[in-house]
Formats: sequence, structure tokens, C-alpha cells
Amino acid sequence: MTQVGNFGDRLSAACQVKGAWVCVGLDPVLEKLPPEVREVGGGDAAEAIERFSAGVLEATSRWAAAVKFQSACYERYGAEGLGVLERMMAMAGEMGLVVVLDAKRGDIGISSEHYAAAGLAVADAITVNAYLGSDAIEPFVRRCETEGKGVFVLVRTSNPGSDQVQGQRLSDGRTVGQMMADLVAGLGDRSVGVSGLSGVGAVVGATKAGEAAELRSRMPRQVFLVPGFGAQGGTIEDVRACGVPGRGGYGALVTASRSVIYAYEKGSPGGDWKRAVEAAAREMRDQLQVR
Amino acid sequence: MTQVGNFGDRLSAACQVKGAWVCVGLDPVLEKLPPEVREVGGGDAAEAIERFSAGVLEATSRWAAAVKFQSACYERYGAEGLGVLERMMAMAGEMGLVVVLDAKRGDIGISSEHYAAAGLAVADAITVNAYLGSDAIEPFVRRCETEGKGVFVLVRTSNPGSDQVQGQRLSDGRTVGQMMADLVAGLGDRSVGVSGLSGVGAVVGATKAGEAAELRSRMPRQVFLVPGFGAQGGTIEDVRACGVPGRGGYGALVTASRSVIYAYEKGSPGGDWKRAVEAAAREMRDQLQVR
Repeated sequence: MTQVGNFGDRLSAACQVKGAWVCVGLDPVLEKLPPEVREVGGGDAAEAIERFSAGVLEATSRWAAAVKFQSACYERYGAEGLGVLERMMAMAGEMGLVVVLDAKRGDIGISSEHYAAAGLAVADAITVNAYLGSDAIEPFVRRCETEGKGVFVLVRTSNPGSDQVQGQRLSDGRTVGQMMADLVAGLGDRSVGVSGLSGVGAVVGATKAGEAAELRSRMPRQVFLVPGFGAQGGTIEDVRACGVPGRGGYGALVTASRSVIYAYEKGSPGGDWKRAVEAAAREMRDQLQVR
Repeated sequence: MTQVGNFGDRLSAACQVKGAWVCVGLDPVLEKLPPEVREVGGGDAAEAIERFSAGVLEATSRWAAAVKFQSACYERYGAEGLGVLERMMAMAGEMGLVVVLDAKRGDIGISSEHYAAAGLAVADAITVNAYLGSDAIEPFVRRCETEGKGVFVLVRTSNPGSDQVQGQRLSDGRTVGQMMADLVAGLGDRSVGVSGLSGVGAVVGATKAGEAAELRSRMPRQVFLVPGFGAQGGTIEDVRACGVPGRGGYGALVTASRSVIYAYEKGSPGGDWKRAVEAAAREMRDQLQVR
């Protein structure tokens, strides 16, 4: 059964328009913002985060297909920060960007229902954690099937400590990460679009090309959300390994955060921080252009 | 090295005062609230959740040592709901309750720092998910060591799907849940108080007494946060197996949510829903009284 116009279809259409599977990661940290943004409004943190986020969206929406909001960076400022997040996600949607909320939620029963309802009210897709099992993410998966939403399940991350859990070997020979991959592939069966891509995707870190190719073979229909390009050390080769084989990066939504949103740290053309951010987004788009 | 006045010490002192390791789980769902609460304020959802939460705190604070706030039930109502959560956690703290935020967060780097800063600003302890590895929860663990905060790492849950992940067998013979238990025990080494309990605890579901005893032997110094008493099917025997052996439930913070907060569904003395809630909390305290 094909789900026409599912999340995979909408995402691949957006990426086609932009010529690359490019996502900007909005992880704003107060101390890193340009002084002229940080000091506005009497130094109110949430207001500075809002101005910066809006500026990054304006500077990158021409080049990026999607934007990934790091929920923690907004939740840090409580109810006020959450208000900023809600407004910025709405703004990104109006700009035609595919909106991914990086919240890594995971709970059971009614709590999971609540997280799905809240997280996917505005965002097109959300990241989730399935340590609690597939029922923990069932309300999210259902929204992929019925509302064309997207979900990215944490499968294999690139942080140093991830091996302690995801790299553990099971008695059947798979790693914990591979076991999670098989779980995700099964969950996505009912939400595959004409793009060949499911609404249920996976988070796969960009720094392990060999592992990525293996995971791709287990999850042929999953969109991979691939953080870690640029500042975190992932190379073009690494991220290509996350795409559908032979299709030039198709199906791997590559995300860069620091290397784009803080590009002004290396200098700004004409003293305008947004021009540096735009140039970095454009450069990333060019590097990742579908060949 | 003993950390005097750590989270374990403070929690066990609070439980001693109340005579039992009792925690009320505040998971308010709009549809289940008493009509007189739900319909107040023109049917504004967040306002109804706030009134209900305040009423439950008033009705139970005499009998419970701690209260566990289900973050999803407040986040459901966006920035407004988060404001309610912040006020209710502060109110619970002023009542002398140990405040646990059930948010199941887990991320890396600066995002994890942000979640720890935000989540533990008011709450005494928080639940976290360590699928990303120990570095994902390091900022939380550090706050246990330096600020006397508490963290409960998801180890073994009682939902049907948990076996798919936590029950998987590793090549070394342990289950994934047992592997997580060993990780947690190691992380808690530096924050053990005079109570013999660490600030780094574990979430262990109440419905598997045999597994709980095995996990207790792996985590002798961990406080177990034990949801699932009452409505979810955990019995007195099940939860006793989560405590330190031979000490009458010591170290197992047993949580009941639905069976206490919706106790009025079975009738209210004098038509006052809060009296039904109080009676249920008292009954739970009596059942769990340290012998």
C-alpha cells in the first residue's frame, strides 16, 4: 500500500526544489550569538534566541530544504523559551521549510500520546527515543500513517558514549543499534510513499560510513536524519553512505548546525552576521548537491 | 567518599517522616478531571490542569513523601502548560514534597546541558533515557554530585513493548536492561550519601518481581523509582522486591498515579473529589508502611 503525499514524498519534493538534502540545525546557545543580537532587549535570553533564530531562518531558507530545531535550546528558557520555539517553527513552515523538531521524546501510553500531539502540532517530523520499545512510539507512527507526519527514531549516534549501548553485541550477532534498525524498518512498512520513502525514519550519525551502509541495507525505505556534518567531523563520503545506494545522497537528510549558524565566528562580509550564515548554508548546499 | 545530604539522604529522610516510600504520580489528563474542575475558567485546558494539580498536591502532601510530575501532560498545552508545570513544581517543593520531574530526557553535549539546567532548576530529580550512552546523562550525574540533585535512569519498564529492547539478550549473557543497570551502578559511585543511597537511581517497573530482585543485586545503592503500583498491576510483593533486601521497602520509591489521582471515579465522600484522592493516598501510605 502506498501512502501518496506522505512525509517522505513531501521531504523529497522539498529537497528536489533546493537541489540537495540539506537541513540546517538550529541549536542556538546564548553565549555564541553575535553581540548585536545577544545584547538587544536588555539582554533577555529568550528574546535574543528568538531574534537569532528568525535571522538564521531568513538567511538559510533559500538553500535549505529543512530546519531541525533543537528543543533543549528553547526549553532551557522555560515557558518563555517554548513560546519562542512555537513561533519559530510556525515561521519556518510559512517559509516552506520542512520542520523537524529534535526533541528525542519517548514515553508510554497517554504520555506518549501527549508528546505526539504536542510535538507534531506544528512540526512536520520529530525525533524519538525507542528504548521503551515500539509501543512507546506508536502514537508517532500512527501520525505518520494518518496525517503524513514524519518520525526519526534514534538508531545509531556518533557521540563517544554511544558504543556503550548501541554498539553492544546481542547473542544473535546484531548490535543493539542494528536491532533498533530492524525494529524501525518494520514500523515504517505502512507509511511508504511514491518516493519509496517511509514516514518513519532513523537518526544515524554521520561519522561512521561503514556502519551507515550496513544500516542502510537494513532500512532501505527510511529517511536517515544525519546530524554531524561539518563541525562534528562527518565528511561528504560519510554522509553519502547514508543515502539510498547509487542515488547521490537521496534519502539522507544531512544536518549541519554549528558550521552554519555560527559561521560569522570566522568573519562576516560587510559586518553582517546573516550574510556569513547564508554563505555557509549555500556552500553546504553546493557540497551536497544531488549529482 | 560519602556525599552527606545527597539526594538519597534527603529522600530517605522525607520517606521516614511519612513512614513509607510513597510517591504520587501527577499525570493529569483533561478528560478524566472532575467536571467541576474541568469546566472552570470557561473550559481552558491549562487552567483546569493547574487547578487539579494544586488540588491533588493539597490532598496528598500529608501522606506522600514525593510527587512525580509527568512532563508530557503539561507540555501538551505548550508554553502555557509549561508555565503550569513550573508553578506546580514550586508549590510542591514549598509543601515539603520531594519533586521528581518525569521527562525522560536524553541528548548529548550542550543539549544535554540545557535539559539538565532546565529540568533540575526547580525539581529535585528527573528521569532520563540513556540510549545515547553515559555521556548523554553526564550533565545530570554531575548535578547529583555537586548540587545534591537526583536522576533516575530508565532501566527496565513494564510496558508490553519493553521486551523488544530491554529484554534482548546480549552475547555476554546479560539483557540490555541488565547492561543498563550495570552502567547506572557505575555512574552512581561518586554520589552515595550516609543513607547508603546514590543520587543516581533507576526506573524499574513494578510488575516483574523476579527481575527486580536481580536488578537490585546489580544496583545495591540505587534508589528505584517504581511506577505501576495499583492501576498498572504491580502488587505489594512486586514493589518490595525493588527495595534494599530485608529493609521493608527501603530505597524503592513506589509511585501510583491513576489509582490515587482519579480515586473520585469510584465515589467521593461528601461529593468532594479531593477527599477521595486523600483517602487513596493515605491507603497507599498504609499499605507501603515501612515495617
